[in-house]
Amino acid sequence: MKRSILLFLPLLAVTIMSGSVFAGMEGGIDDSALKSHFSSLPEVARNPKNLQNEDKVELGKKLFFDPRLSKSGFISCNSCHNIGTGGVDNLPTSIGHGWNIGPRNAPTVLNAALNGSQFWDGRARDVEEQAGGPILNPGEMAETKKNILKKLNSIPEYKEAFKKAFPKDSNIKYKNVAKAIASFERTLMTPSRFDAYLKGDDKAITVKEKKGLKLFVKKGCVGCHNGVNIGGGSFKAFEYGDDLGRYEITKTEGDKRVFRVASLRNVELTYPYFHDGKVWSLSEAVKIMGEKQLGVKLSSRDIRTIVAFLKTLTGTQPDIAVPILPPSTEDTPRPDFN
Amino acid sequence: MKRSILLFLPLLAVTIMSGSVFAGMEGGIDDSALKSHFSSLPEVARNPKNLQNEDKVELGKKLFFDPRLSKSGFISCNSCHNIGTGGVDNLPTSIGHGWNIGPRNAPTVLNAALNGSQFWDGRARDVEEQAGGPILNPGEMAETKKNILKKLNSIPEYKEAFKKAFPKDSNIKYKNVAKAIASFERTLMTPSRFDAYLKGDDKAITVKEKKGLKLFVKKGCVGCHNGVNIGGGSFKAFEYGDDLGRYEITKTEGDKRVFRVASLRNVELTYPYFHDGKVWSLSEAVKIMGEKQLGVKLSSRDIRTIVAFLKTLTGTQPDIAVPILPPSTEDTPRPDFN
Repeated sequence: MKRSILLFLPLLAVTIMSGSVFAGMEGGIDDSALKSHFSSLPEVARNPKNLQNEDKVELGKKLFFDPRLSKSGFISCNSCHNIGTGGVDNLPTSIGHGWNIGPRNAPTVLNAALNGSQFWDGRARDVEEQAGGPILNPGEMAETKKNILKKLNSIPEYKEAFKKAFPKDSNIKYKNVAKAIASFERTLMTPSRFDAYLKGDDKAITVKEKKGLKLFVKKGCVGCHNGVNIGGGSFKAFEYGDDLGRYEITKTEGDKRVFRVASLRNVELTYPYFHDGKVWSLSEAVKIMGEKQLGVKLSSRDIRTIVAFLKTLTGTQPDIAVPILPPSTEDTPRPDFN
Repeated sequence: MKRSILLFLPLLAVTIMSGSVFAGMEGGIDDSALKSHFSSLPEVARNPKNLQNEDKVELGKKLFFDPRLSKSGFISCNSCHNIGTGGVDNLPTSIGHGWNIGPRNAPTVLNAALNGSQFWDGRARDVEEQAGGPILNPGEMAETKKNILKKLNSIPEYKEAFKKAFPKDSNIKYKNVAKAIASFERTLMTPSRFDAYLKGDDKAITVKEKKGLKLFVKKGCVGCHNGVNIGGGSFKAFEYGDDLGRYEITKTEGDKRVFRVASLRNVELTYPYFHDGKVWSLSEAVKIMGEKQLGVKLSSRDIRTIVAFLKTLTGTQPDIAVPILPPSTEDTPRPDFN
């Protein structure tokens, strides 16, 4: 008897959570209903088309930190997606080759592999597709495929590492550079107190933080910021600034000012906010979201409470040793600052 | 009797090593004589005026990796003194604020605390005096003391960390920023096979490498490249390029084109060479040194043998976890790209 009740509970929860049942339940949404919008982090964000192995991850880590992937030899992936600062550069928009100031804010690399697509406009399907982009972007790392391969082939340790990581390929391929970096990125998961809560530890978040979670659900934030990454899974129009967003890629009228919804994991660390990085305060960002996306004017108190919840999404940051990079040889193409 | 012979041996060695006894000993310089020019690395390069403690080192590590110490928020100490690449940036000269190309090659931070002075022109006595320099240099990190203190004071974790590291000072002081960074740098020692050899492990270097060491001593390289850092301890004129070196500081005629002798520890990793970073090949650098500084034309074979020895100076590189930096607050001065 007891057992059948337990089995029944989740079903009940699903029933309660669906529709606008919330409206009549001021403060009384039950835990299962709250949790049903999210799922907790995996240990690694696996991709069946780019299987993880230690050699690949180690190689990817080296490449991620290697400034030789840029034309100047000065900029690495980590320059803008800094592992020590929430996987971002905490700049409005990033600095690239020749001190070029980029058009959009650098999204975090932490948990990024779990997003439904990559870049603010979602133009890459996954981190495998994303990782090769900035290296070749003239305003970012400004390197060429040809020169990357020349550089890597001139360094015996890299040649060896590629052979080990991709035993089926006899030569270094550019797509494997991206695959290795992506493999490393797939390990950058930051489990948070909110994950502990999702997994059943009710004490992992405070009463105030849970109140914030309830507001987050009731006010409708959860409509976009849901799933394993509390965002990152869908596209949404955002009438803010001049950036046409996804329209630049699809040229479809309906995609004007449409952006991929940002993941809120580690949002406390990934300031400044929005695609133009012009908003520095998390409270201000929540306020703007309320007004623009939900059409509600959130009270200062509600904002504070929601922000308290958002801070439970700050996870255990990656513990990564600065990789010691293999030295160049006399055959390695030289850095070019111009 | 046996004991007194053992006690006598070091004395004998000192006697043999002194003077130009070498000339008559083709290939037969004994180990004690060879070793007498050098000393092995300490575990930490201590400074009685800046005592090491864990809190200070931890704080210094964070500051070393924190790009907020630059005006732009993009450049950290590690940008040019990269722990993953021999403590340098492997660029001819470094890139600074606004993509400014600096005038001189970035010297390595590894073992730097053991040098007799800092910078190519020796204008700073020690790493404590050095560390505060590049932060304020308009062509490097381009920040001001005032803004650094404003930034650090706006971040509670940093305030706390300074209190712990410098309990006698109630406020954050700029000189303590430098002291903390210097404390971290004093831990960046890279013991090498050559150190193992100096400590008595005769098998730590090969026969060829030892031959290179003998050449290094006999040809006179050791006249400047000696001591614990195999260089770094004296100044020398170097007729090469237009840079006036130490003269720019002292305005003394005799200091024209005088530079601090570079340490050769990790020289395999710290390419490109010399103060202008225009020489990429270690063999080429050795050849130039022979011609310009010793007035000898070294044979290709001798150069190869000396280079083999120089590679024994490549040490165990630091094992440093990327420090997780405390987030800014709404009071933290914003990055300024201009």
